[in-house]
Amino acid sequence: MDYRKFTEEDFEFLRNLVGKERASRGESNLNIHSHDESFHAGYFPDVVVWPLETEEVSKIVAYANERRIPVTPWGVGTSLEGNPLPTRGGIVLDFERMDKILAIRAEDFQVDVQAGVKYQDLNKALRWNGVFFAPDPGANATIGGMIGNNASGVRTVKYGGTRDNVAKLTVVLANGRIIRPGNFAQKSSSGYDLVHLIIGSEGTLGIVTEATLRLAGIPDQFSAAVATFPSVEAATQTVYDIMAAGLGPAALELLDISTVKVINKEAEGNLKEAPTLFMEFTGTSDLALAEDVKFAESICADNGCTGFVSGVGPDERNQLWEKRHMAYEYIKRSNPGLDFMILDTAVPLSKYPEMVDFAVKTIERHGIKGYAFGHAGDGNLHLVIAGDFSDAAFCKKRDEANHEIVSHAISLGGTATGEHGVGIGKKKFMPLEHGESLELMREIKKVMDPNGILNPGKMIDLE
Amino acid sequence: MDYRKFTEEDFEFLRNLVGKERASRGESNLNIHSHDESFHAGYFPDVVVWPLETEEVSKIVAYANERRIPVTPWGVGTSLEGNPLPTRGGIVLDFERMDKILAIRAEDFQVDVQAGVKYQDLNKALRWNGVFFAPDPGANATIGGMIGNNASGVRTVKYGGTRDNVAKLTVVLANGRIIRPGNFAQKSSSGYDLVHLIIGSEGTLGIVTEATLRLAGIPDQFSAAVATFPSVEAATQTVYDIMAAGLGPAALELLDISTVKVINKEAEGNLKEAPTLFMEFTGTSDLALAEDVKFAESICADNGCTGFVSGVGPDERNQLWEKRHMAYEYIKRSNPGLDFMILDTAVPLSKYPEMVDFAVKTIERHGIKGYAFGHAGDGNLHLVIAGDFSDAAFCKKRDEANHEIVSHAISLGGTATGEHGVGIGKKKFMPLEHGESLELMREIKKVMDPNGILNPGKMIDLE
Repeated sequence: MDYRKFTEEDFEFLRNLVGKERASRGESNLNIHSHDESFHAGYFPDVVVWPLETEEVSKIVAYANERRIPVTPWGVGTSLEGNPLPTRGGIVLDFERMDKILAIRAEDFQVDVQAGVKYQDLNKALRWNGVFFAPDPGANATIGGMIGNNASGVRTVKYGGTRDNVAKLTVVLANGRIIRPGNFAQKSSSGYDLVHLIIGSEGTLGIVTEATLRLAGIPDQFSAAVATFPSVEAATQTVYDIMAAGLGPAALELLDISTVKVINKEAEGNLKEAPTLFMEFTGTSDLALAEDVKFAESICADNGCTGFVSGVGPDERNQLWEKRHMAYEYIKRSNPGLDFMILDTAVPLSKYPEMVDFAVKTIERHGIKGYAFGHAGDGNLHLVIAGDFSDAAFCKKRDEANHEIVSHAISLGGTATGEHGVGIGKKKFMPLEHGESLELMREIKKVMDPNGILNPGKMIDLE
Repeated sequence: MDYRKFTEEDFEFLRNLVGKERASRGESNLNIHSHDESFHAGYFPDVVVWPLETEEVSKIVAYANERRIPVTPWGVGTSLEGNPLPTRGGIVLDFERMDKILAIRAEDFQVDVQAGVKYQDLNKALRWNGVFFAPDPGANATIGGMIGNNASGVRTVKYGGTRDNVAKLTVVLANGRIIRPGNFAQKSSSGYDLVHLIIGSEGTLGIVTEATLRLAGIPDQFSAAVATFPSVEAATQTVYDIMAAGLGPAALELLDISTVKVINKEAEGNLKEAPTLFMEFTGTSDLALAEDVKFAESICADNGCTGFVSGVGPDERNQLWEKRHMAYEYIKRSNPGLDFMILDTAVPLSKYPEMVDFAVKTIERHGIKGYAFGHAGDGNLHLVIAGDFSDAAFCKKRDEANHEIVSHAISLGGTATGEHGVGIGKKKFMPLEHGESLELMREIKKVMDPNGILNPGKMIDLE
């Protein structure tokens, strides 16, 4: 696509529209919006704008569309595949100031929010109502970013991902038109499912400005447990057995021995240094929970479990999840001077043991350093590759390993990305994963964004 | 749209392609495929074809697209809004013979099926694996029909509708191209969600020939209960209170007094003749279940419940659900000579009491006979209007009542159809419900089916 160069006249238009303090070409602002949490090379926007409401977004996008200026939405930059990087410059719309909770409707298990609300802040505001928004990517992402990415996390095994927990959206289309697909009912068979089409489209089909989220009741009781195993194979087999038994854990996380060691080192943990499963069960009765944990323990034992600590109290449980959420951060901290690529694939449950084994052996074969962990109950594997990314020989090995692992996940009937999205890094796998479907995706992109102004360079190329 | 008249040459092409016994212009075959279970006027196809595989469907659709012949997919005709009626004639593709279960992958909680498999037959085949496909529209619909309609039913309150339980599809597009969107993983953030776009599109965007369905474990324990109330208001308030308490029933159904009377009459039931809730709870422990039922009973008592029968055994429980599933049939049987329109709306949970009250009062005001029941736990209301549809004065009242009730559901933030789909009957409400979104739906229809050959006259008109 051809884009027009961003001009002083464009900047004037934006400053007149939103006011001087909400449109900036300052170097530090451009810099902050040039990179996310991924290793991908930076791209600088021409301008950053902080909208306050949907109508402003609509006017900006309509203007940009007429003038062929790229527009890329920005949440808080916690993404891991370069998803919000302005690869072709232009306007970055930062949703920081659209952070209002518009209406808590706990009686309908719903909340209306602006796209810039962060999910951890949202859950703090909701807790006195006894409800919460379940998808939890770990980093304090915005709801808009989570919707763009179809983010998920440790609780997805029980509650589903973002896609499963959105009822209605407000979306600004490429021509500036505002649509509000979805409704507030529990279910509907009316019309085409535009809500699901937009979720996970990473701002390439439209820009989400508001959303109605579905909420879950905060469980009365929970019980966390930590199990250790003689091998990763034994741990992943246990994951499969627990899920196949229908135990329905609220979380089921795998950490390989390297990840456990890093957590011990960086967080003064005293975890046993072995392949480990973190798990949690929730329910309405103590007794039923105890039964679940006992059942899980017996499955662990059948797989040669070398340690099983249950009955973890609230504080310790919160620390456990904090450690899990921080794993990637700890890996970074304990490897000063290195760079990091985080892989994210998901496979059918029955293939999870094979997938993890393949991934671990692949990086071993290439002789590179890696950490394996992930939302095992979903068949979701994360693998962090650490190294010096200015070393071309290392990068070659890294890219080969990445290619082999992601391709293997797809060949097992899985997906190139379980939750981090396509962004820049996974675009090359789209033909392999989607085959003939990719052409239809491109046609839909073309009809919804004919000038390709929405988050260009991501997901799909128009030409 | 302009369609070409179906010719002898077209018939010859189809007979050469599939063989003489699988393409018919016989009067009885055309007649069978001219009406579903709704009151909508019949439309006759020019030919009925029974494909055996995806490639055949692809060839037929490609041929029809080149020649501008309408193609309408047909499951088993149990739909309630005229969804598969060939309004513009042409080819009906009857999926009766594409009824193979391709692979049961219980280890991944998935099954691969052809679109013509009926869900009750599927669940019979699955039961020895301890798993089942949860959405249950009652009538023995095909999976293809359920996907077309995003069908749901009594268990949707716990397990979601069809949309929530499909992993992957095989779809023939209007130009004959075959796509296979989705994958076998538990979750994915890769590409646009074509699976959800197709589900609920009633064959107007593509024809589903195969599907991978998500399965649930058959619960170990269940407990059904029947509660009666002094008024519909008390019953619907109880529905809301049970859901708001987070009790998570596996079913929660409302029946008004007229519906209960009909069940007693037609099925020799001995239900107390009062507004009634059927409910069911499932779990892994007897004890936890008993707690749930006790809690539900106390909520019923708070709303002035006049009878609460719990501890219903397996046989009686199955009879209960059979009666609920047969309610519409019983209403028909007990009103010989009359015609029936079944309304289907859904509203946010907190508006359910108001919605039911409005619906009942509206038909009273118009002086017409009606029966109210529905999947109350979803906020889903069915209202059967019975009368003589050859009487123009009656039809005027019926249509006015229908218009008022559906419009009211939309004004409460609900939807024109909770589960029966748009078909012919709800098309007129699409602008009111979807507003600006409708234009985008039309653009997507246009790009996916430029000649409008796929199930014309449904959902959206191209011009």
